[in-house]
Amino acid sequence: MAKKRQGAPFTRIVREIPATVPFLAPEAIERRSGKALTLRLGANESAFGPSPLALEAMREAAARVNWYGDPESYDLRSTLAERHDVGRENIVIGCGVDDLLELIVRTYLEPGQTAVNSLGAYPTFAYHIAGYGGALERVPYHDDRNDLAGLAEAANRSKARIVYLANPDNPSGSWVRVDEIGALVDALPEDCLLLLDEAYSDFAPAEALPPVDVSDPRVIRARTFSKAHGMAGARIGYALATAEIIAAFDKIRLHFGVNRVAQAGALASLQDTSHLKSVVAAVADGRAEYAALARELGFTPLSSATNFVTMDVGGVEQARALVAALAERGVFIRMPGAPPLDRCVRVTVGTPEERAQFAEVLRAVWPQVAEALPTTI
Amino acid sequence: MAKKRQGAPFTRIVREIPATVPFLAPEAIERRSGKALTLRLGANESAFGPSPLALEAMREAAARVNWYGDPESYDLRSTLAERHDVGRENIVIGCGVDDLLELIVRTYLEPGQTAVNSLGAYPTFAYHIAGYGGALERVPYHDDRNDLAGLAEAANRSKARIVYLANPDNPSGSWVRVDEIGALVDALPEDCLLLLDEAYSDFAPAEALPPVDVSDPRVIRARTFSKAHGMAGARIGYALATAEIIAAFDKIRLHFGVNRVAQAGALASLQDTSHLKSVVAAVADGRAEYAALARELGFTPLSSATNFVTMDVGGVEQARALVAALAERGVFIRMPGAPPLDRCVRVTVGTPEERAQFAEVLRAVWPQVAEALPTTI
Repeated sequence: MAKKRQGAPFTRIVREIPATVPFLAPEAIERRSGKALTLRLGANESAFGPSPLALEAMREAAARVNWYGDPESYDLRSTLAERHDVGRENIVIGCGVDDLLELIVRTYLEPGQTAVNSLGAYPTFAYHIAGYGGALERVPYHDDRNDLAGLAEAANRSKARIVYLANPDNPSGSWVRVDEIGALVDALPEDCLLLLDEAYSDFAPAEALPPVDVSDPRVIRARTFSKAHGMAGARIGYALATAEIIAAFDKIRLHFGVNRVAQAGALASLQDTSHLKSVVAAVADGRAEYAALARELGFTPLSSATNFVTMDVGGVEQARALVAALAERGVFIRMPGAPPLDRCVRVTVGTPEERAQFAEVLRAVWPQVAEALPTTI
Repeated sequence: MAKKRQGAPFTRIVREIPATVPFLAPEAIERRSGKALTLRLGANESAFGPSPLALEAMREAAARVNWYGDPESYDLRSTLAERHDVGRENIVIGCGVDDLLELIVRTYLEPGQTAVNSLGAYPTFAYHIAGYGGALERVPYHDDRNDLAGLAEAANRSKARIVYLANPDNPSGSWVRVDEIGALVDALPEDCLLLLDEAYSDFAPAEALPPVDVSDPRVIRARTFSKAHGMAGARIGYALATAEIIAAFDKIRLHFGVNRVAQAGALASLQDTSHLKSVVAAVADGRAEYAALARELGFTPLSSATNFVTMDVGGVEQARALVAALAERGVFIRMPGAPPLDRCVRVTVGTPEERAQFAEVLRAVWPQVAEALPTTI
């Protein structure tokens, strides 16, 4: 191979966008620090693990990992269709919500068009918008909740094609009600999609979950097995939409993308409603415990309908210093990336043992952090 | 939610491309016929399963499936880097070669630009080209091998950005030599990438495998754990390229896409070189047996450096009728989709027991098929 080019010829979008990653993973933090994490409470992973039925199903399915998975995920879609009282043709399976976000962006957004989300919302949506050459309008949180009127206003002003809304929300933990979502949809431009990321829906109160209406092409709902089902590493989630939208996804999606073992695990997990209930109850206990801990230390816990609690520690300097000090002790948590929520830290609900460990470290670390800062709360 | 749109507003590409799937899966065939397949020899899955070490690693890793996988696949990339004597920065991990093909197409091809492959080659490449709005030039196989001079000619004529070459090839089973690949690369337009799909490389003779040269931006090599490693359902593969190319992928790829259990399995599988060797030897035995069976029935087996044997059964009518007659008996094989190879059927090497079963069915079915056809070989 004699002649060699100077470099590789990429598309304009790939050349022009900067190198970013949506998240620095806990493993990367460990590699940077050279120390193993002792508490992993920063990625909203379920501390309560997968359902024992799902675990058994995955271990059994592993023996047949030499076979490709069913690209139609027929059995899983059938079960989900029954669960949601929709047709199989209203469901697409993806490698987690992240994959579905990409698929949706790719299906709806031409390069140069605009999407809207909240400033500081789930970074992977912004990552895919950039990756497909789109522009992003960001609307600040208001009263620590998504500002639905602001999102609608931005969508109309920017002629947006997609509005992303996580409900319940990450990183605030807050939720919006069914009537608020309905009003948002009606306030959007006619050709604008509401992408409703319901990753935390299993933890949500009924008032936050609109009935599933797969006749409405203005809304796509994304769900996942990563949170309450405790299967984040399996990378499996789904979206609910009109049959026309699902058929559009089928034209371009990676048909052989989902892991066969994950399909088996998700199917089994759906049968284990008692595990799901116990996880949701255990997470509620953990949230209450975190809220009490936060108050004890002078923080303000935000209300949460998720598996984490976001705690107002008084300012961005405090939040940064606290995250860093905890990291020093091998405790991984995160903080929201933008104001006004960046005065907070976000802590995933751990097991009772993990929470006790976390409380102990936090009680030891916070006074030192507070003392070292020029101004404290 | 009062007003409803008539339909959903998709991108131009999504609106304009037809609905297709790369493959009809064996599960879909079963659902259509209402009968379970008794022999699954059509998808080039490994009949010899995953390594016992990989299986054990996956079962162990399943207990931690509540944690996201490492988005950098650091350990797996480190091991692969050592194996190939390259840097970690020369490797990207994806959900199988299918996922990597999409990533490569997305990174290199603007809508309207052209790619080149062989007529009847692996359909998933064509699927992604269409999905990103590209055009595809197809060059017929010559003497049942990829026509490298023809590919180069087509690439220059059409100003192609990507030439796709599977080596060893699917569906012919043939391979090209290192010197032929070098000549092809040198004959391509300056800004044209050679995408070398080496899914079957573990079965290939040394003369088919160029030394890995990650300083050359003109070539990307794609490898998988789906074939000899027996982990098709895990959806994990990798590509080798210059650090600049891998960095470009990192700007847009799905960072949290690969299953954590698959990462653990792939890592363990790389350690089990004796399993890999035994699979490669068992597959060679199976190929010899299939070749003898083919000759016994008056077919011509093509030479194969893969885990399947493509058999010339004398014509497209014969091939179609044979595939259909075998399907009637619950035996799943495939046939190449385009001339001149569509005079053949393609049979994946099974276990000795599966091969005996297959031989029995084939010996019973072929005379009936041949008799029913207007002309026979």
